Amino acid sequence: MVLNLHTPKIALLLLTFTALISSSVKAQDPYQAYRQDWLKKAEENKPRLTEIEKQPVSMVKLEKDPAAFQGWKAVNTDSVSSFYSKSFKTQSGAVADFGEHLTGYFSFTIKSLKGTPDAPVRIKFTFGEVPSELTVPFDPYKGTISRAWLQDETVTVTEMPATITIPRRLACRFVKMELLGASPYFDFQIADIQFKATTAVAFKPPLLGPATSPLIADIDRVGLTTLKECMQTVYEDGPKRDRRLWIGDLYLESLANLYSYQNNNLTKRCFYLLAGLSADDGMLISNVFETPEPHAQVGNRLLDYCFLFNVALKEYVAATDDKQTGLDLWPVAKKQLDIARKYAGKDGMMDYVKAGKEWWVFFDWKDGLDKQACLQGLTIYTLNQTYALAKMLGKEDEVSDVPALARKLKNAAYKNLYDKTSGLFVSGTNKQISYGGQAWMILSGVASKTEAQGALKALASVKDAVRPGAPYMYHYYVAALIESGLKTEAKEAVENYWGGMIKKGADTFWEVYDPNDELKSPYNFYPVNSYCHAWSCTPVYFIRKYPEIFQR
Amino acid sequence: MVLNLHTPKIALLLLTFTALISSSVKAQDPYQAYRQDWLKKAEENKPRLTEIEKQPVSMVKLEKDPAAFQGWKAVNTDSVSSFYSKSFKTQSGAVADFGEHLTGYFSFTIKSLKGTPDAPVRIKFTFGEVPSELTVPFDPYKGTISRAWLQDETVTVTEMPATITIPRRLACRFVKMELLGASPYFDFQIADIQFKATTAVAFKPPLLGPATSPLIADIDRVGLTTLKECMQTVYEDGPKRDRRLWIGDLYLESLANLYSYQNNNLTKRCFYLLAGLSADDGMLISNVFETPEPHAQVGNRLLDYCFLFNVALKEYVAATDDKQTGLDLWPVAKKQLDIARKYAGKDGMMDYVKAGKEWWVFFDWKDGLDKQACLQGLTIYTLNQTYALAKMLGKEDEVSDVPALARKLKNAAYKNLYDKTSGLFVSGTNKQISYGGQAWMILSGVASKTEAQGALKALASVKDAVRPGAPYMYHYYVAALIESGLKTEAKEAVENYWGGMIKKGADTFWEVYDPNDELKSPYNFYPVNSYCHAWSCTPVYFIRKYPEIFQR
Repeated sequence: MVLNLHTPKIALLLLTFTALISSSVKAQDPYQAYRQDWLKKAEENKPRLTEIEKQPVSMVKLEKDPAAFQGWKAVNTDSVSSFYSKSFKTQSGAVADFGEHLTGYFSFTIKSLKGTPDAPVRIKFTFGEVPSELTVPFDPYKGTISRAWLQDETVTVTEMPATITIPRRLACRFVKMELLGASPYFDFQIADIQFKATTAVAFKPPLLGPATSPLIADIDRVGLTTLKECMQTVYEDGPKRDRRLWIGDLYLESLANLYSYQNNNLTKRCFYLLAGLSADDGMLISNVFETPEPHAQVGNRLLDYCFLFNVALKEYVAATDDKQTGLDLWPVAKKQLDIARKYAGKDGMMDYVKAGKEWWVFFDWKDGLDKQACLQGLTIYTLNQTYALAKMLGKEDEVSDVPALARKLKNAAYKNLYDKTSGLFVSGTNKQISYGGQAWMILSGVASKTEAQGALKALASVKDAVRPGAPYMYHYYVAALIESGLKTEAKEAVENYWGGMIKKGADTFWEVYDPNDELKSPYNFYPVNSYCHAWSCTPVYFIRKYPEIFQR
Repeated sequence: MVLNLHTPKIALLLLTFTALISSSVKAQDPYQAYRQDWLKKAEENKPRLTEIEKQPVSMVKLEKDPAAFQGWKAVNTDSVSSFYSKSFKTQSGAVADFGEHLTGYFSFTIKSLKGTPDAPVRIKFTFGEVPSELTVPFDPYKGTISRAWLQDETVTVTEMPATITIPRRLACRFVKMELLGASPYFDFQIADIQFKATTAVAFKPPLLGPATSPLIADIDRVGLTTLKECMQTVYEDGPKRDRRLWIGDLYLESLANLYSYQNNNLTKRCFYLLAGLSADDGMLISNVFETPEPHAQVGNRLLDYCFLFNVALKEYVAATDDKQTGLDLWPVAKKQLDIARKYAGKDGMMDYVKAGKEWWVFFDWKDGLDKQACLQGLTIYTLNQTYALAKMLGKEDEVSDVPALARKLKNAAYKNLYDKTSGLFVSGTNKQISYGGQAWMILSGVASKTEAQGALKALASVKDAVRPGAPYMYHYYVAALIESGLKTEAKEAVENYWGGMIKKGADTFWEVYDPNDELKSPYNFYPVNSYCHAWSCTPVYFIRKYPEIFQR
């Protein structure tokens, strides 16, 4: 996830926050005594990546097909050994297919086939997670985020034989090779195409139950691959883009990890890293980078992600019983609750207008989503989850005001946002009805089970209900269906949405997926979307946590 | 110099020779006993390159100017420190000027100016020896040799701060920097642009006499820079292109070196390398490469260059008295004379038609040049020079047939090629009159001094006389003027031709220069020409060897 140019307000806010932080007094830093220790623990828990050498499995050509995802499909043409055996001059534009999504380092060997190399060779490599990245011209670039995310690299080979590794880490299934320059006086071949694939995953996850349907098994498999690819030295949001640790993605990845790869050290590392890089006022920064030194995207303060840190930490401690990490980071979790205290009005309603002016309030990539109901729900949910964490750690005394605050917000939400006539929750001055609003009112427990079922069922008949914009929000929608006991609907939602990607040939789940608009992009250029995106791996969690719903 | 696509015959010949060599029997290799020792001596004499860190001296912009070389000139705009201090986003397209031609490795530092870098940056660097390389679009590429020679490299910077060195060795004075991709959410600057310049030159050459004219001093200075830039771990033909050791370039470079930098070990290294990499039948290969292992361009057999090896070796031994190298390599020199024996007819005329079918006979980049007179002259010259070498080494007995053969060829040349009526030498069935033909008839001593002067003076009035195509042939023309005692004319030729490049702003002398066609290119695209080319450094030799002509 990156900021969206379509929301210039955000950019302005960032600058404001940056300025605020710069002028803050260091002495006020509530974690001053802990930071070094947290960063040290983050480093200690840095995983040793598994490295596997992968070879392409086939050569393919890309064909237009209106039925294929984004209009392009890859069709097998030739064996890789046949490609290697022939002059590359006659094969410019060839596409190698690794048969699976890989993250890591690409290398190739180039050697003379006839004559003495008397000039350098120039080859353009384009790496694609999906076929469209190899077919849609990148330039002139129309996207709103950096053109440099697109994975095309031109290499000048000045001598041969040579084995060359492209320095940049890449994420792809396909690689297109185009000859941009060569001497007419010798001939050469490309061979030994390799991908040194890396991941923090070391173990295979448990098998699914024998009654699992093929579609659910496929969704699980692709979700696992998505998660595996995003698990590097942190939980990345996407190995192609943006390649860093965001709290929201961490939350969903760590949930899925608990029920699959169980690399709990990675989860721990991420918590410590985020804590160690939090802002001087004690608030978490939404995303952090590992290199060249660990650092946060200063000023990028995302309200919902601060809250989700607490929720993720609670789930982690509950599942692992690692109370030490919980206790170490308790000061951080406790501090995030100040956000709730600050914006909760006397009437028990969160001042979402003020919060929206002072924070980036995200929830979904969806223009026009009113965030009042989401924020109210998430705040209640966070208060309750954090209190549950406090109880596990024996720290209830430090947050003794929280249960009452949660109740107050819950009551106010029910009073102000629940429309008894329609059985739906509304949001904002225009009383917007959204999937996100219902989900968060349900997850927070504002709705009774009956009301929850009623609201979720009623949604279908509301013509202009604001639907989820990205898989991330779909997670909360599915979680709400399960919470409401709508098991069949939950399974159908997963089968329809993630299964839709499967049917369109997904090897990994996509950052953005609108079944009715395959070219949708928050960045105004769909090839720059991430097609292996952490927040889309969440079916792994649902399928494995709720076998009675998904594995029968 | 590379092969020219315009001469498809050559390509065919190469293949023929390659096949011939492949089928030759190893046991016939006349140098089998020596090769390893020669290659070892080449390695022992490999120079330790001088490395100097260079910084740009100014920022420039490129302006159209019909009066400037190739229509473009560089105009100072800003200081380098000013460029460093500002956001690169506002300066895309900036051009840094190092103020001199450099060969080596380019690096730059990139660092954040505002905000946290949240996406990679993509920058295209274009390196130019002359302004036109930064202004003429390279694509779609129309040249006949590899597009990869052109020096544009696109770099993806995935984290910052970072100092990045472009892996490829470059040769340039100017570097253009274009921003191809960046995030809108942070700002950054480029700083510490550096060029690690390398050369095998370690000492300053002797000063010129005080009476030297400013123009001659300039020609000498630019010639010295050209030579210095081409002196790397071998005498390269051009540091931008083709970056390898050709015998013809070695000859002119080693002459200039004798009278300037005096790095005689480099000359020695090149002789040994060529000998060690000669063909199994004892003939030299026209050009060799150093990496990844020393190897020759198998099949590239260039008749005149085999002969010039002998001439260069003789000049080297005469100047340095290094008889050991002469004796070591004598078997090679002796062997090259077989070419003369093979193609010399009973009538004393070289069978240039047959030789032209079996060899690449070069002499000049000049379409339509008839090579009979050139070949006849060079053969005689080589026979005499090699015999002179034999005498220095006490090896006359081994080539006792040579003086008579030289005389026979000389007499036949005079009889068949000298037109007493016009006082000019002719060449081929069409009796072509060329500068090259006159030059070689004079250098070989076929013409008396009076005849030589007559021929050279008569040339001016021959409307369709074939003029030199490249600076390389100009060398032989000037040498012939000096040989004939036409001192003023020799100086004027240097002043007009090389002085013409000076007046057009040359920092180094060009591979190709036609005063009437600045866009001339043997490769159908002038930006791929080399603008720092060994064979054009030859005025250094003339100016310094003949102070009585050039330094008064």
